[in-house]
Amino acid sequence: MSGEVAWLSGVHAVVAALEAGRPIDLVWIQKGRKGQRIQRIVELAAERNVPVRFVPRVDLERVARGSAHAGVAARSAPRAFVALESLVRPAGSKGRLLVLDSVTDPHNVGAVIRSAAAFGIDGVVLAGRGVPPLSGAVAAAAAGHLETVPVARASVAGDALRKLRDAGYWVYGGETAGTPLWAVRPPERWAVVLGSEGRGLRAKTKAFLDEIIAIPMKPGVESLNVSVAAAILAYSLTEAGNSHRTDND
Amino acid sequence: MSGEVAWLSGVHAVVAALEAGRPIDLVWIQKGRKGQRIQRIVELAAERNVPVRFVPRVDLERVARGSAHAGVAARSAPRAFVALESLVRPAGSKGRLLVLDSVTDPHNVGAVIRSAAAFGIDGVVLAGRGVPPLSGAVAAAAAGHLETVPVARASVAGDALRKLRDAGYWVYGGETAGTPLWAVRPPERWAVVLGSEGRGLRAKTKAFLDEIIAIPMKPGVESLNVSVAAAILAYSLTEAGNSHRTDND
Repeated sequence: MSGEVAWLSGVHAVVAALEAGRPIDLVWIQKGRKGQRIQRIVELAAERNVPVRFVPRVDLERVARGSAHAGVAARSAPRAFVALESLVRPAGSKGRLLVLDSVTDPHNVGAVIRSAAAFGIDGVVLAGRGVPPLSGAVAAAAAGHLETVPVARASVAGDALRKLRDAGYWVYGGETAGTPLWAVRPPERWAVVLGSEGRGLRAKTKAFLDEIIAIPMKPGVESLNVSVAAAILAYSLTEAGNSHRTDND
Repeated sequence: MSGEVAWLSGVHAVVAALEAGRPIDLVWIQKGRKGQRIQRIVELAAERNVPVRFVPRVDLERVARGSAHAGVAARSAPRAFVALESLVRPAGSKGRLLVLDSVTDPHNVGAVIRSAAAFGIDGVVLAGRGVPPLSGAVAAAAAGHLETVPVARASVAGDALRKLRDAGYWVYGGETAGTPLWAVRPPERWAVVLGSEGRGLRAKTKAFLDEIIAIPMKPGVESLNVSVAAAILAYSLTEAGNSHRTDND
């Protein structure tokens, strides 16, 4: 296989990659592993003529590089980033995006992608330096949803936010102080940007926000994990935009 | 130091442990690390007469065992579990608990403890086998909140849930199908129990529930990460129980 080689690990990630037709050329299963889900992987690999090898646990540990592998890994090219423009929905339809600024931890990035899938977010934008490749630990934490959630990349968050605002999106920033989340009534199309833990949003990024919102928390708690914050925002903003909540109010 | 020795890692965890007066007898800082937060750790350790040693990165990697350490670790006894009874609030006051049944991943357990702190949950109950000690990866993921959130342990989830119901708590179970979260109006005292990812709640546990609730998700998405699900439930149930939401409805 040409290009950069990467390993997906974990049952969810490997099944999803095989089902979605990702360019996989090898599957490893830990010796002695059995069960329905292992059988499913063997069948999917056979359907696609992908060789399966049963290997010692130590080999899986090596390619999983600290990610949970549950006895399964697959060799693959990293998933490609999409163009930001392809994530933009036209006026009159719902548009929902999560933007992460300078979030480099692959577990957090993968977990955000998984939550984006759960709440019907159109895509995720990874901005800033040190964005991890869409493979390995990101794929494992995304639990298969790298296959269903498109991810774009932007060198500078502000550039992406400017494009989204020009397209008519309302751009929220998540911070520890701002409009409380329960009071937010989102428009049809919105994006929400979160910064890295500890540092929050950078001044340069804040210049491109329409509104700053906050998840109300107990005083004295510094911050939430960024993937937890993203999930709460995604849940609450999509719920708030759904008709049952309006009916219910 | 007598008893089991454990290592906390990460700036948040070490600062919080020192501030809270945990039994720490040694602090390690990676050679060459500087900055305000490192200085703060050095000062806190000096105040408490805890020796600080500057060590190579490889030593920190060894004691952190795969957890993020950010150049800092502290040797400590694991935090003790509290009695379930100490988490029970009397009728007439607010009572809010998270119960994890058979959740063994220390990162998830720690992340749930961190979210519990953020939303003013009274405590966390860890039920089932394979509960991790309250140290190491749990402490790092809890970002210092092992010091502020009491954690109880139960061999069998059902036993804990029976006690909570007997005390007058309303016991929710989180599942993929049930009363949608936005429709839930929690009483003053409640507990919510979540199972391990993939398997969900066990039949034996379900027998002790008053109500099953679900986080509405896009069809076809199998599940959320358990720490993400716990955070959304904690956020939404505590928000729903707060007066501003009632005023707002």
